[in-house]
Amino acid sequence: MSKVLVFGHQNPDTDTIASAISMAYLQQQLGVDAEAVALGEMNEETAYALNEFGVAPLRIIESAKAETTEVMLVDHNEAQQSVGDIKEVDVLAVVDHHRIANFETANPLYYRAEPVGCTNTIIYKMYQEHEVAIPKDVAGLMLSAIISDTLLFKSPTCTEEDVKVAEKLAAIAEVDMETYGLNMLKAGTNLATKSDEDLLNMDAKSFNMGDKVVRIGQVNTVDVQDVLSRQASVETAMAGQNEANGYDLFVLIVTNILDSDSVILVVGEPKENVEKAFNVTLENNTALLKGVVSRKKQVVPQLTESF
Amino acid sequence: MSKVLVFGHQNPDTDTIASAISMAYLQQQLGVDAEAVALGEMNEETAYALNEFGVAPLRIIESAKAETTEVMLVDHNEAQQSVGDIKEVDVLAVVDHHRIANFETANPLYYRAEPVGCTNTIIYKMYQEHEVAIPKDVAGLMLSAIISDTLLFKSPTCTEEDVKVAEKLAAIAEVDMETYGLNMLKAGTNLATKSDEDLLNMDAKSFNMGDKVVRIGQVNTVDVQDVLSRQASVETAMAGQNEANGYDLFVLIVTNILDSDSVILVVGEPKENVEKAFNVTLENNTALLKGVVSRKKQVVPQLTESF
Repeated sequence: MSKVLVFGHQNPDTDTIASAISMAYLQQQLGVDAEAVALGEMNEETAYALNEFGVAPLRIIESAKAETTEVMLVDHNEAQQSVGDIKEVDVLAVVDHHRIANFETANPLYYRAEPVGCTNTIIYKMYQEHEVAIPKDVAGLMLSAIISDTLLFKSPTCTEEDVKVAEKLAAIAEVDMETYGLNMLKAGTNLATKSDEDLLNMDAKSFNMGDKVVRIGQVNTVDVQDVLSRQASVETAMAGQNEANGYDLFVLIVTNILDSDSVILVVGEPKENVEKAFNVTLENNTALLKGVVSRKKQVVPQLTESF
Repeated sequence: MSKVLVFGHQNPDTDTIASAISMAYLQQQLGVDAEAVALGEMNEETAYALNEFGVAPLRIIESAKAETTEVMLVDHNEAQQSVGDIKEVDVLAVVDHHRIANFETANPLYYRAEPVGCTNTIIYKMYQEHEVAIPKDVAGLMLSAIISDTLLFKSPTCTEEDVKVAEKLAAIAEVDMETYGLNMLKAGTNLATKSDEDLLNMDAKSFNMGDKVVRIGQVNTVDVQDVLSRQASVETAMAGQNEANGYDLFVLIVTNILDSDSVILVVGEPKENVEKAFNVTLENNTALLKGVVSRKKQVVPQLTESF
């Protein structure tokens, strides 16, 4: 077997980076020549976590087939969220916690998905099943991923299993998960230094819904005014991305991690599908979604349904 | 949670029926109100296995949403192989050992696929993980499924894991797997009493390849002349099915389970994709494929590639 690249989705978040690292380490222990790589620059939250546990940033790739014929995907499966030439390599394995869509293989493969809050919760179970010990630094990153994806266990995507696994990982990593977790989340909310483009790209994914391409970005903050105070220029950047990339609709979710609410900002059409999905009326292209913090559970299914 | 229907693919084979039964039993032990059902009449091999272990035939359903909103799929994922209204119900879980294609959900789900010879090999591991004991009759059916899918361990799809799991199941079921296995396989090869339509429907699946719909049927025999002696009328029936169901191409694989070779019979177009896929020249619409016994590993990927 030649080298196997292991990577998560574009616009990597903490779970995607940590999953690539934890999955590649597990595969290496099982005898696979696996390398964790990333499809883009990591965000500040992830940088905080890597720094905290002394792990080097991942190498960034533009193409998979330039280096290998075999890959493993973590934390995603949809082709439009993956490396550009994903259809030209063989997918040996997928570990994920999202819906399955726009994913197809010619051959049988290893696919493991569970409806839990974080990919690393599943990877933790795989370590247990293979009886592979988790090193302290890898455990710290896996814990960071669970905290990030569940917003410190507040998201409706968070399951009992995520909490239990996080507790075990915190013990291995020797950190207090509440204190460490809040510091890590806050490190990811410094929006003031970000350009509008950076802000849109921090954690954005594309979805095919009906015959439309919908781009959904999400930023965390401790004050939604961080974003709303620059709404005009952000909207211009959103329209520019729609135009340049063929998105029909761009939905930006601005999530207050302290209140666990979100404001959405919408550019493109059909806006009425957004209003229908959340039973709201957009005012000045925005709406408050009370209690909404999860793109996966509280935004994507509702939008998919309304398309 | 309301009742959850658990079923395998259309034209059920032994693995599909046994998977539905073993998965539903496991789910019941985990507190789910699960019922195993089938999407069509079972074949003679499966009937032999059910009879041998004293299990009643499954109820056959035409529609999922007429009875429930939630289903679990075993031994398949592609929509065209599933119940007709699969897109109108929620798929809670999939356990499978095939490629993934034409499968999409709105929500995250439990998906477990491994590139092993038989779905029941994976389900066996799930019993272990949940520490649920396998009853003797269920173990017998799970063993039957592994023997069926691997042609008594001769298929290239068979893995070490399939063999190991089969040995454990044979011990629980209290049968000699070689003797029982050959008897069961032979029970499925009695083609003389079958109509041409029955023969085509015994184990047939549809695949979207490029922009074509390809129907691939497989029958096991101890003498390929069983089928070739009635080639003219079988071809007429294949052409009739193509016409009636919109298949572009029908490939019937006639597998000699003693020699582990197959003869293919091809009706429809483009035939040249079949010749290219297997590097053969069709003579009188047939070709011998030496050493080919597995549709999944030795036919579908090659055809997919050539489309």
